[in-house]
Amino acid sequence: MSELKLNCPLPLQYEQIVMAHGGGGRLMQQLLDRIIQPVFSNPLLNQKHDSAVLTVNGSKLAFTTDSYVVKPLFFSGGDIGKMAVCGTLNDLAMSGALPLYLSCALIIEEGFAIKDLQRIVESMQHTAQQAGVLIVTGDTKVVDHGSGDGVYINTAGIGIIDANVNVSPADIRVGDSIIINSDIARHGIAIMLEREGMNFDSNIASDCADLSGLVQDLLKADIEIHCMRDLTRGGLASGLIELAASSHHAIKIDETALPIHQDVSSACEILGFDPLYIANEGCFALFVPQAQAAQTLSVLHRHPLGKQACQIGTVTATHSKGSVTLKTAMGISRVLDLLSGEQLPRIC
Amino acid sequence: MSELKLNCPLPLQYEQIVMAHGGGGRLMQQLLDRIIQPVFSNPLLNQKHDSAVLTVNGSKLAFTTDSYVVKPLFFSGGDIGKMAVCGTLNDLAMSGALPLYLSCALIIEEGFAIKDLQRIVESMQHTAQQAGVLIVTGDTKVVDHGSGDGVYINTAGIGIIDANVNVSPADIRVGDSIIINSDIARHGIAIMLEREGMNFDSNIASDCADLSGLVQDLLKADIEIHCMRDLTRGGLASGLIELAASSHHAIKIDETALPIHQDVSSACEILGFDPLYIANEGCFALFVPQAQAAQTLSVLHRHPLGKQACQIGTVTATHSKGSVTLKTAMGISRVLDLLSGEQLPRIC
Repeated sequence: MSELKLNCPLPLQYEQIVMAHGGGGRLMQQLLDRIIQPVFSNPLLNQKHDSAVLTVNGSKLAFTTDSYVVKPLFFSGGDIGKMAVCGTLNDLAMSGALPLYLSCALIIEEGFAIKDLQRIVESMQHTAQQAGVLIVTGDTKVVDHGSGDGVYINTAGIGIIDANVNVSPADIRVGDSIIINSDIARHGIAIMLEREGMNFDSNIASDCADLSGLVQDLLKADIEIHCMRDLTRGGLASGLIELAASSHHAIKIDETALPIHQDVSSACEILGFDPLYIANEGCFALFVPQAQAAQTLSVLHRHPLGKQACQIGTVTATHSKGSVTLKTAMGISRVLDLLSGEQLPRIC
Repeated sequence: MSELKLNCPLPLQYEQIVMAHGGGGRLMQQLLDRIIQPVFSNPLLNQKHDSAVLTVNGSKLAFTTDSYVVKPLFFSGGDIGKMAVCGTLNDLAMSGALPLYLSCALIIEEGFAIKDLQRIVESMQHTAQQAGVLIVTGDTKVVDHGSGDGVYINTAGIGIIDANVNVSPADIRVGDSIIINSDIARHGIAIMLEREGMNFDSNIASDCADLSGLVQDLLKADIEIHCMRDLTRGGLASGLIELAASSHHAIKIDETALPIHQDVSSACEILGFDPLYIANEGCFALFVPQAQAAQTLSVLHRHPLGKQACQIGTVTATHSKGSVTLKTAMGISRVLDLLSGEQLPRIC
């Protein structure tokens, strides 16, 4: 983020990549800010948005990419194929785009069962069809046994943005209401329980879902959306901290307002995880003018993926480095910071 | 290819993925035609082109993706970063597009040296800058040690195609001249020598290069290009066999016309490889009307990447299944067929 100095020598412990470099926390930010961003730097990349927003022949397009390395490949509520499609649809939607076309690039490990591959591509196609988008181009590579982990999937996507829609971290304003569409932390906990073979009484399913239809409903209702962010790796806290830093604003959120499923909350308590930092795959935060908060909630509540929508906080002030403060259930204020990495690696 | 029946039960030996499923040969075609293509099937994907050609708001766009798993990561003439940029630029160029924007998604193995990562992204940026394109969006994932192989890169790309340009396998016509821009088989042999630690007297470097400038020169000269194909995995033979099959044409090529560097030819002879099936990364075939062959060659010869351009064959007839016949140096005709896989795996 902005407080990091570019091109400073890396501390010795970071001469090699560690798992936390992919965890959506501080070490990942350092890797991006010190190594990758300075090399590729250009105004479009530097928007630090979920998608790049491009103008091609007068049309405003969104373009995004994500690789998926989630482990296990199949889990309660989804699989790597559904995630790869939903994740890229959501990144497009977060820039205000209507998703149109996706790519699908597979890196398959030698020895992977073809019936599992078939199940995964069928899940991708099913999810794409539900969303009304086409998978139009692809690539297949095979790596030797021991050089992969079943299958890794990359999806890139193209969407179209209405000329009047401007959704970006730079458009966040003091006074904005911060709304989320659903309960948090379900995806990360579902993956963790699946991975560790733990059985809780109730089945906690990932929230993995395509949010683009919900976003289109908001746009059709003429909600003046300032910014949106899907709360994936690093969870709600990391998403808001990044937005606060890149928009130079202070954010306050209220712990008692956060919807968390009782079973997720119990699992977090037993396992020692903070749900604020647990990944979601069907939950997003949106920033709207306070005057439109009620209407926004009403649009969200009419959609199956927005039934639990609620306001969780506000943008309170400008702040050079950005800050996110949580008012806890005890009434104490706590400044949230990025974790060094993800509490759970290989979550997406 | 067209002769395969879809949805037929897979022979037992193909219940799991083998290396040849990624080799650009017959097994890869089977995987695509039986498992992936039937699931995703749509008119845009079914073009079987290097890029999907899309119309968005009246603009003709090309969209493509490729993952790179080449081993080793650094080799004479290039590295995985340069390849990842050139490969996607070339896929866009092969559809007649001017490349505009690229994505960069990294899957990095825990323990990978950050200085190597830096060298790779700098190589990507250098190659992109030379081509006048921007890397505008990206993603970084980390997988645990033993679940990757240093780094895998996916690049997707967007380009714009002039409304009057139509370049696709379906536009191949009887009588077309088939021209290539350079000598063949350098990339595969360079990688193989590097991987096996073999030292030949002369340094055989990969031909890895961005062909988009050369293609733009052809378009500016109003060459009526019917089809283009970069001759990557599976080499010249596989590229032409695929085009013959998807366009339903018979192709004849002349072995004596094929430019092969003497050192590459010697290496192939010693190692028992057929240069016709060896991967290239800066060589493409183009199909133009015979009347424009001389002008095409003249445009190509003026560009550094086209100095060795020559006509290697013609499209001789329609043929329901497609066929490629090689007239050998001995004057014998030999029908070329896809190999089951790649002679050299992990070549790109």
